Amino acid sequence: MINRLVSRIRETGAPIVVGLDPMLSYIPEQILEKAFSECGETLEGAAQAIWEFNREIIDNTCDLIPAVKPQIAMYEQFGLEGLKAFEKTVKYCKEKGLVVIGDVKRGDIGSTSAAYATAHLGKVTVGTKRIAAFDEDFATVNPYLGSDGVKPFVKVCREEKKGIFVLVKTSNPSSGEFQDRLIDGRPLYEHVGEKVAEWGEECMGDSYSYVGAVVGATYPEMGKILRKIMPKAYILVPGYGAQGGKGADLVHFFNADGLGAIVNSSRGIIAAWQQEEYGKYGAEHFGEASRAAVLDMREDIAQALEKR
Amino acid sequence: MINRLVSRIRETGAPIVVGLDPMLSYIPEQILEKAFSECGETLEGAAQAIWEFNREIIDNTCDLIPAVKPQIAMYEQFGLEGLKAFEKTVKYCKEKGLVVIGDVKRGDIGSTSAAYATAHLGKVTVGTKRIAAFDEDFATVNPYLGSDGVKPFVKVCREEKKGIFVLVKTSNPSSGEFQDRLIDGRPLYEHVGEKVAEWGEECMGDSYSYVGAVVGATYPEMGKILRKIMPKAYILVPGYGAQGGKGADLVHFFNADGLGAIVNSSRGIIAAWQQEEYGKYGAEHFGEASRAAVLDMREDIAQALEKR
Repeated sequence: MINRLVSRIRETGAPIVVGLDPMLSYIPEQILEKAFSECGETLEGAAQAIWEFNREIIDNTCDLIPAVKPQIAMYEQFGLEGLKAFEKTVKYCKEKGLVVIGDVKRGDIGSTSAAYATAHLGKVTVGTKRIAAFDEDFATVNPYLGSDGVKPFVKVCREEKKGIFVLVKTSNPSSGEFQDRLIDGRPLYEHVGEKVAEWGEECMGDSYSYVGAVVGATYPEMGKILRKIMPKAYILVPGYGAQGGKGADLVHFFNADGLGAIVNSSRGIIAAWQQEEYGKYGAEHFGEASRAAVLDMREDIAQALEKR
Repeated sequence: MINRLVSRIRETGAPIVVGLDPMLSYIPEQILEKAFSECGETLEGAAQAIWEFNREIIDNTCDLIPAVKPQIAMYEQFGLEGLKAFEKTVKYCKEKGLVVIGDVKRGDIGSTSAAYATAHLGKVTVGTKRIAAFDEDFATVNPYLGSDGVKPFVKVCREEKKGIFVLVKTSNPSSGEFQDRLIDGRPLYEHVGEKVAEWGEECMGDSYSYVGAVVGATYPEMGKILRKIMPKAYILVPGYGAQGGKGADLVHFFNADGLGAIVNSSRGIIAAWQQEEYGKYGAEHFGEASRAAVLDMREDIAQALEKR
């Protein structure tokens, strides 16, 4: 799957992942009204609105981008109905040829981590059958529990040719509370980065590993160091756009080959229609606003990479 | 909810939580056969078997214990059908008067953590309505992302009078890889423990905080130190039984008042019928085997606390 992700990035010239993290407040009134009039103000109604919203954005951007990253929390809050919309979104994106990164940030130990890996990347055994559940292509994983928590994912990645992105340095302001603390003179995130490189060796694609890392765009200097510590890890970079990261901040996350990083934008793309810059599209044409935002983001990153 | 948990522990005299972490391999043949004959070897069939299995164990133990802890990964691997069984289990346990700790180990940042908190402990806004999704009483939370990840949970806890247990020192062998590393001369888990105490101050019940901690039974010496660092945090202690923790290891997790800790056992209780000790009950009476295992665990802990 990492090979597929790399080749899709080459094809599109866009190291971009669109974060499908729908909040009801991002969804235009006409979609909400239709869903609520059909299903009432229920979890089902919310889930239908989310699905209609996602589909329009996917249809308007899928030829431009290699991958999407649905954030499962935004679906999980609507319970089973929300998770149905998540499942439907994953399936639809795969039909459209997109690589799907399930932003699930799961992590537990032993058989429990194995169950999460199965849920999102693998197949579960039921009697004589092997059945896939959510079936994303990649999942994000939390490293706090150490190798016991991550290795069950690596095992499933090897079996299914899928991938993970391990949280190394997250984009949020308080990420430093624990991640930046010095251990033997170096911050915790560097130690985690070293483990990512180690886990990744067991599971290599052609030029990059099936085990990638999450490093926030908001910390470019740290990205520079982590790029060196994990040369074979693809870096998933959140924090571009709404969280404050700019194209110029991103160059350090890429290798000299122009590969090695994929940058996420969520609100900046899916709620583009609400921003002044794309206001001309209006609520009616929110999908086209998203498309325009993707094109601008691609340009911003390409220019930054050219200038370096 | 922490007050309710404390009073249920007093009533039952059992600081015990039963981990409802069903693997299909724990489920007696007669239940699997019935479910597969009705639904086929499908995700639905697996989910039905899990639900029948859980119900029997709940019915046989609910008068003895204050709380259960369903591990959502074990349901999530069966997709939406599995999560339906999770939802049904949570609801049934609450009807039986049990406190439900959703072992979900979620954790993200800002609005995403808020969405997880809403999914598991809160109510989501849909139009003019406020609707609860999974609606557990407590959830477990991963601290790697720092305060940004935990505070949205604390906010929902305050609003809904619910609680969380933050992972501090987990029970698995590799938990030390990051958690034990020294920062300013003290291990990371102590720093996390200090934050737990700080977060907990914002959210106090009568004698304990709504913000508790997870500390593995397999590390009793660390439990002793963490007990002092977080005097008002209830400690959820996994790792008893199958993972190697014994009654005598547990005494340091409790305060002098005999409260402050609740010990989890999963396989040791729910798969008791497969153990030599409880073999006499047979597959037919697996619920009674679980009941016997709860009684033995209660006795083991009570004796250990008496002897200290």
